[in-house]
Amino acid sequence: MSRRLKICINTGGGDAPGLNAVIEAVTMAAHHRQWEVYGIRSGYAGLLNTNDIIRLTPKVVDGIAIQGGTILGSTNKGNPFRMPVCNVAGDCEERDLSGKVLENFKRLGFDALIAVGGDGSMEIAKRFSDLGMPVIGVPKTIDNDLGGTEMTFGFDTATGIATEAIDRLHSTAKSHDRIMVVEVMGRDAGFIALNSGISGNADVILIPEIPFDIDKICAHLMGNELNGRKYGIVVVAEGAMPAGGDVVVKSEAGLGREHVVLGGIAEYVAQEIASRTGKDTRSLVLGHLQRGGSPTTFDRLLALRFGAAAVRAIEAGKLGHMVALKSDRIALVTMAEALSVEKRVDPRGDTVLTARDMDISFGD
Amino acid sequence: MSRRLKICINTGGGDAPGLNAVIEAVTMAAHHRQWEVYGIRSGYAGLLNTNDIIRLTPKVVDGIAIQGGTILGSTNKGNPFRMPVCNVAGDCEERDLSGKVLENFKRLGFDALIAVGGDGSMEIAKRFSDLGMPVIGVPKTIDNDLGGTEMTFGFDTATGIATEAIDRLHSTAKSHDRIMVVEVMGRDAGFIALNSGISGNADVILIPEIPFDIDKICAHLMGNELNGRKYGIVVVAEGAMPAGGDVVVKSEAGLGREHVVLGGIAEYVAQEIASRTGKDTRSLVLGHLQRGGSPTTFDRLLALRFGAAAVRAIEAGKLGHMVALKSDRIALVTMAEALSVEKRVDPRGDTVLTARDMDISFGD
Amino acid sequence: MSRRLKICINTGGGDAPGLNAVIEAVTMAAHHRQWEVYGIRSGYAGLLNTNDIIRLTPKVVDGIAIQGGTILGSTNKGNPFRMPVCNVAGDCEERDLSGKVLENFKRLGFDALIAVGGDGSMEIAKRFSDLGMPVIGVPKTIDNDLGGTEMTFGFDTATGIATEAIDRLHSTAKSHDRIMVVEVMGRDAGFIALNSGISGNADVILIPEIPFDIDKICAHLMGNELNGRKYGIVVVAEGAMPAGGDVVVKSEAGLGREHVVLGGIAEYVAQEIASRTGKDTRSLVLGHLQRGGSPTTFDRLLALRFGAAAVRAIEAGKLGHMVALKSDRIALVTMAEALSVEKRVDPRGDTVLTARDMDISFGD
Amino acid sequence: MSRRLKICINTGGGDAPGLNAVIEAVTMAAHHRQWEVYGIRSGYAGLLNTNDIIRLTPKVVDGIAIQGGTILGSTNKGNPFRMPVCNVAGDCEERDLSGKVLENFKRLGFDALIAVGGDGSMEIAKRFSDLGMPVIGVPKTIDNDLGGTEMTFGFDTATGIATEAIDRLHSTAKSHDRIMVVEVMGRDAGFIALNSGISGNADVILIPEIPFDIDKICAHLMGNELNGRKYGIVVVAEGAMPAGGDVVVKSEAGLGREHVVLGGIAEYVAQEIASRTGKDTRSLVLGHLQRGGSPTTFDRLLALRFGAAAVRAIEAGKLGHMVALKSDRIALVTMAEALSVEKRVDPRGDTVLTARDMDISFGD
Repeated sequence: MSRRLKICINTGGGDAPGLNAVIEAVTMAAHHRQWEVYGIRSGYAGLLNTNDIIRLTPKVVDGIAIQGGTILGSTNKGNPFRMPVCNVAGDCEERDLSGKVLENFKRLGFDALIAVGGDGSMEIAKRFSDLGMPVIGVPKTIDNDLGGTEMTFGFDTATGIATEAIDRLHSTAKSHDRIMVVEVMGRDAGFIALNSGISGNADVILIPEIPFDIDKICAHLMGNELNGRKYGIVVVAEGAMPAGGDVVVKSEAGLGREHVVLGGIAEYVAQEIASRTGKDTRSLVLGHLQRGGSPTTFDRLLALRFGAAAVRAIEAGKLGHMVALKSDRIALVTMAEALSVEKRVDPRGDTVLTARDMDISFGD
Repeated sequence: MSRRLKICINTGGGDAPGLNAVIEAVTMAAHHRQWEVYGIRSGYAGLLNTNDIIRLTPKVVDGIAIQGGTILGSTNKGNPFRMPVCNVAGDCEERDLSGKVLENFKRLGFDALIAVGGDGSMEIAKRFSDLGMPVIGVPKTIDNDLGGTEMTFGFDTATGIATEAIDRLHSTAKSHDRIMVVEVMGRDAGFIALNSGISGNADVILIPEIPFDIDKICAHLMGNELNGRKYGIVVVAEGAMPAGGDVVVKSEAGLGREHVVLGGIAEYVAQEIASRTGKDTRSLVLGHLQRGGSPTTFDRLLALRFGAAAVRAIEAGKLGHMVALKSDRIALVTMAEALSVEKRVDPRGDTVLTARDMDISFGD
Repeated sequence: MSRRLKICINTGGGDAPGLNAVIEAVTMAAHHRQWEVYGIRSGYAGLLNTNDIIRLTPKVVDGIAIQGGTILGSTNKGNPFRMPVCNVAGDCEERDLSGKVLENFKRLGFDALIAVGGDGSMEIAKRFSDLGMPVIGVPKTIDNDLGGTEMTFGFDTATGIATEAIDRLHSTAKSHDRIMVVEVMGRDAGFIALNSGISGNADVILIPEIPFDIDKICAHLMGNELNGRKYGIVVVAEGAMPAGGDVVVKSEAGLGREHVVLGGIAEYVAQEIASRTGKDTRSLVLGHLQRGGSPTTFDRLLALRFGAAAVRAIEAGKLGHMVALKSDRIALVTMAEALSVEKRVDPRGDTVLTARDMDISFGD
Repeated sequence: MSRRLKICINTGGGDAPGLNAVIEAVTMAAHHRQWEVYGIRSGYAGLLNTNDIIRLTPKVVDGIAIQGGTILGSTNKGNPFRMPVCNVAGDCEERDLSGKVLENFKRLGFDALIAVGGDGSMEIAKRFSDLGMPVIGVPKTIDNDLGGTEMTFGFDTATGIATEAIDRLHSTAKSHDRIMVVEVMGRDAGFIALNSGISGNADVILIPEIPFDIDKICAHLMGNELNGRKYGIVVVAEGAMPAGGDVVVKSEAGLGREHVVLGGIAEYVAQEIASRTGKDTRSLVLGHLQRGGSPTTFDRLLALRFGAAAVRAIEAGKLGHMVALKSDRIALVTMAEALSVEKRVDPRGDTVLTARDMDISFGD
């Protein structure tokens, strides 16, 4: 394909360490082919308001791979298939503005869009692809819960930050004979909790995939106490749930189940442990600390490989696909395939077995 | 002093990065003089129960300076001048067991005690010193609020961790046009908030020494928005208070003032900002993350210098003193001097002026 | 298998971040099954001198996963199939002491050996396995050049350290319009150079798999200069070689080819660039910095998974195998399979393509 | 002073972590007063070629404090009092262009210059100040060898990097029973070697202020071996010298004394130790790794305080002074005072005593 193409890139959903690396690699690889490349700010919304489109050049992206966030600015500006539109009186309704997006895309002469995002963004990308827009997807999810790829960028960074936090909590928990409950990201999938909990030498790991029994957690911690380990670290994914439970936890995701518990799952677990064991117990929510900042080397490289592969996929005419990591190589999968699977921790997989072998309890 | 002395060391209060470095230096310096050195576990309580005393040798302390926490174990086991004593029925009363501590100290043949701790520990050390026990104090306070010394170990580490957290929050706050309110340690003194807030390029810093007006904070943030900075970082010390306020905040320290606010000062500030500006605002409490883990090089070195200087002070017969940092040299001050001053941020000092020069608001 | 087994573990070859994590996981998983586990110091040599065998318990290994090095001490004590034996006169000869190793192994009642090491260690392990010793291999190579597994522990840490070093060199190279040549590990395989060079935004990457032409390197750097980038970073693997070259470089590995160049490949490349371009050019050898210290979270987890999987392999009777990472799962491969392939950078693989797309030159 | 001033800033000498923080604080503090501020690229040379002057605004400096290097670009472009000037034939001579600098300074309407640099830059600044140019100095030296101030920015970062490197070397030295000799910066003053050596638990520290005897170093290391410590770490400042020695070492600074030793002082020391003790001994030069990259929180804050204080000094009319750190406060000292003292490690100071108390040898 010797024609000089004109492509664009947007980043959707929450920010993840590595977004800027994708942007850098896409820009460099496009420039290498003497293509033009543009960044669309604010997700798809930028195609509604063409003031939000910026030219990307090697100079603009020089060295951004090391930076957190995204130079394409605010990422969560809505789904063009049901975009909230409000009148001056403040009354809002959802409208399908996808036609406008498609129209602007063509009018601006773009040959392809590289859409970076999680499952929400991939669904939108697939709908546009089905409508004839040439799209390549780049997977992004800190929680690592996106199908079709073994790993996504951002996950290694988040797991590393969580592990470092757990490492730090050991010394203070030990110095005070205390139970520390630390909440990490993972609404639907417990990968961050599982991996950081094992690496960080936790005593208990609670994940959405394995419902927990608070009595078993307490029994495990008191058993440790008898063996001379008078402190404990409990790592809990934000989406962990009691078995057969009716507990409702407050979280960013809103409320579920029946009873409201202020402060999230970590505070709930800490209170229950404290009241049942009498141990000094504290909770801590890592929250946004896991999302920001410079990506690890692993995430930087993976994001750069994804970005360059997306450009090569456009060159090869493989539109409608998502780049993915398979057996340490970049592969292309259909968006349908990526969206057909919800990736979750395998309760019988070797990582969970490793935890059990190391005498870590899942409260089950 | 050519006699082979027999000395001991205890660590009191909350743990701080650098405690193990003090222990390592004391042990090495004592060994260098062919003295015997013992570690008393659980603060002064170890002198009540002599099972809690361990021999310290170069082999035991090899390489511990890099580790967080304290190898002398749990640190908060009470004040021997009013130690809680409970009978089997669970009825407790406070008793003065200082005589027992003194008696054991002499019976075990110790020539001196090195007491590492904050103002509470220094007060106890001074009382024992007044009763004739040969004591050298080593200052320890993460908040940097102890008089008599320009700096204590642990503070640089805590400030570094807070700054790194603020650095991380920038990228996510910026990507989402969000206000992030982050609570750091500092019940009485705002040094950690001030130093990490300036280093971390915060927009607002709230410290106990400068009561804040929530309206001024909001005006500052909205002014930034007009200038194109659509996100904001607010760093708040746990002890920050509204001017003329009657707000009560929940914290580890207990309650004060009148109205109960769940979740601490950061959540209160975040809620107020959100309701007044309509901005997406989140809060985060760093909590124990600031206390644990490996000390920075600065803290390691300072703690090692303190430990070795304490041994030299014993050798020189300068008992009843505390080691201190003055103009980058180790000095000895009397414990009375150390306890006579409460160290606080100087609202007219150059660090606060630096913040104001950099357009950071204190909400005043 | 309900019998209580008695197993042992040794670590061979150079140290790698993660060795202690393997030891911790093996110990915990064995203890979980109420097995006894022993550590053999000094590689296989410890089975010749049974003073070098220590009991491993949960208490001994508590928290060691975070530490660099290996608690089993010095690792390079020779191959028992040709062990140097010297008399008092200092005359040495190589003897086959494998029979003695086997005999002691049986006499001590061990049911299995977990042998951790690189290709050298795996070859020895295979020979003992062929002689009837029940062995499970755990792959260890910082360079990532071992076949049969997608990844080994230590590699992520080394790549991260190299990338951080490259990041640091950018600012000083840029401030002084300088070319910096940095030598990283990789005698036969260029994975560390390739991955850290891409992540660290290098201008040139030189690896053993792609022989380089110094003139092309200089042309690339001078081209950058014309485009306004007046400084440059060249990352060179220790085993990189000029195309058709007759250059001999000094390295730990000894000498090869014809002409002796003092100081290694980095100094050679730096001198050539300086003399041809006239640019201020400096070289730096990272050396042992890449090998020591705490493993990354990724390496810690991988090493723990390998260790626990090795114990499960013994339980399942799968002796003579090596644990391996395949598609993010732990698999078992025969030692023959692991040894049959030399893992190298694929010059047509997507990672090399990513580098080329980002305008990084391989000097070819 | 209510007039709107117009000021400029330059950065001289080698780069140091914190230069950008000074630039950020100067810009913000000037903007706060509604002054205009300009950055002079390439040291004083930018005042000879006014194309090298850029306007600094809050937007330009936003967030640069965290970055290494200097946005004012290449720093070493010569002394205007003896600037090399070459004709087309390549013949060069040194000319005094200070008049031209002064003339441009006035012509451009600048009210003051903030000169950031080490002793060389401060000498030039003083000469311009004596000629009537309104100058404020900001001290910068990684080696911490500048008089008049207790500390300069860059030093804490460099010491931290050196300590982290030493930490890493421990595990590999220990695993292989090896002596590692690591060379750190410090041509005239040994502060980095001393502080990182103590913090990093070295066995031997060699600094310019204490000439060493290689036999005493070997005796110390062999004594450790007898006590069971079979490995060793030797930290050597690049300017360390043997006592009564006639050894010449190659370094950036050029050659001195009599005999040429290739590879610098670390290689020399390593070779001597290896030949006298027979131990496996390796050397490593940290070099530019210590200079680049993001400053520590301590350095960031100090640099920001220096920058803001420089602007306040201009406002207060205190020209001809240098900002300095004294007893944890920013003070102003005359440039003459700063230049009158060469700051060196005090061989009888408490830090050296700490090292000796910890059984670290200086080879004396």
